[in-house]
Amino acid sequence: MRVLVIGANGQVARHTLTKLNEAGHTPVAMIRNAEQETAVKEKGAKETIIADLEANFDHAFNGIEAVIFAAGSGGHTGADKTILIDLWGAVKAIDTAERLGVKRFVMLSSMGTIDPDKSERIRHYLVAKKLADDHLKRSSLDYTIVRPGSLTNEPAKKLLKLEEEIQVRDNTITREDVAIVLAEVIDQKTSYGKTFEILNGDTPIQQALDKL
Amino acid sequence: MRVLVIGANGQVARHTLTKLNEAGHTPVAMIRNAEQETAVKEKGAKETIIADLEANFDHAFNGIEAVIFAAGSGGHTGADKTILIDLWGAVKAIDTAERLGVKRFVMLSSMGTIDPDKSERIRHYLVAKKLADDHLKRSSLDYTIVRPGSLTNEPAKKLLKLEEEIQVRDNTITREDVAIVLAEVIDQKTSYGKTFEILNGDTPIQQALDKL
Repeated sequence: MRVLVIGANGQVARHTLTKLNEAGHTPVAMIRNAEQETAVKEKGAKETIIADLEANFDHAFNGIEAVIFAAGSGGHTGADKTILIDLWGAVKAIDTAERLGVKRFVMLSSMGTIDPDKSERIRHYLVAKKLADDHLKRSSLDYTIVRPGSLTNEPAKKLLKLEEEIQVRDNTITREDVAIVLAEVIDQKTSYGKTFEILNGDTPIQQALDKL
Repeated sequence: MRVLVIGANGQVARHTLTKLNEAGHTPVAMIRNAEQETAVKEKGAKETIIADLEANFDHAFNGIEAVIFAAGSGGHTGADKTILIDLWGAVKAIDTAERLGVKRFVMLSSMGTIDPDKSERIRHYLVAKKLADDHLKRSSLDYTIVRPGSLTNEPAKKLLKLEEEIQVRDNTITREDVAIVLAEVIDQKTSYGKTFEILNGDTPIQQALDKL
């Protein structure tokens, strides 16, 4: 599949380009400027498209069969960017996919979005992510919402705990494992319409995904 | 009517307490701390209730017949508070009104929310307000969404321009006139399900509202 990865220069997204490539897909990296091109191509992007979530990005959807939304404003910008990228950028990407007939949409979300009020420190971020997820659920798209716990940079463990709502809190998962999940579910029909949390656990990734 | 004014210590809200009082309603001022009590009572609040939009505020809805949401994080806090008050606080207030059976809900919104991308400077604020308005429109409540232009502190002119979408931009309206509109529409059934923009203009307020 030709898969548009939005926010392709992000840390999870870069791993996702690699995993999509390994799985035989054509990852199309949506990046904000040409300077990011070399980095995403090295990671496995077969094509790049320069587009800005804060402007019109319709052209990025040309010939696209599936979207992975992995954009995030990150910790170095203000909460205004959390609204404009994580929430508004997502809402616009969802609406654009619907309008242009790209049915398959995978959202990189976050644990904690089920009840943002349980968090003090990043509540505003979790609200933004939750409302983006809610918008996707109301859409007509074939969506999957993947909600990892705290992200680490260790190599993939290839072992998951996957549930709709995991009771253990403050646990971790490697970015590479999240990327494997995103790349695996993209063409897995049993994941359509599903929302789930993931941490590193005891179950081999494919076995955990087979339960969906 | 017993009208809960959320964010009662705000500038438009204080005028609204006065106007509700003058119209024979019982304004109940929802305030965050007891220090605000004297100020809102001087403005016309018949009752005060201490409650925090960032915590559980169910108790504020006891015996309430209508809600005016006039809370805003203002210009002195960060955009994290724009998410937590203007958007998340509004979403929770709407959900609480639905859950507790308070059907009438008037939202103080803003011009510019129809297309936040047209604004550079306050886009994140307009996105937050737009998404709150969208949540209200999807609810089962008898809503009215009032979207004033740039607010001024002049005395009321009592003359309006009122349209679904006003083409003139960068125009103004006094806070007192906005308050008159909020207090007038609260029991006006023809305003249910309506969203409109207001500026100061040429039409007497009641005549402008009669067109709804």
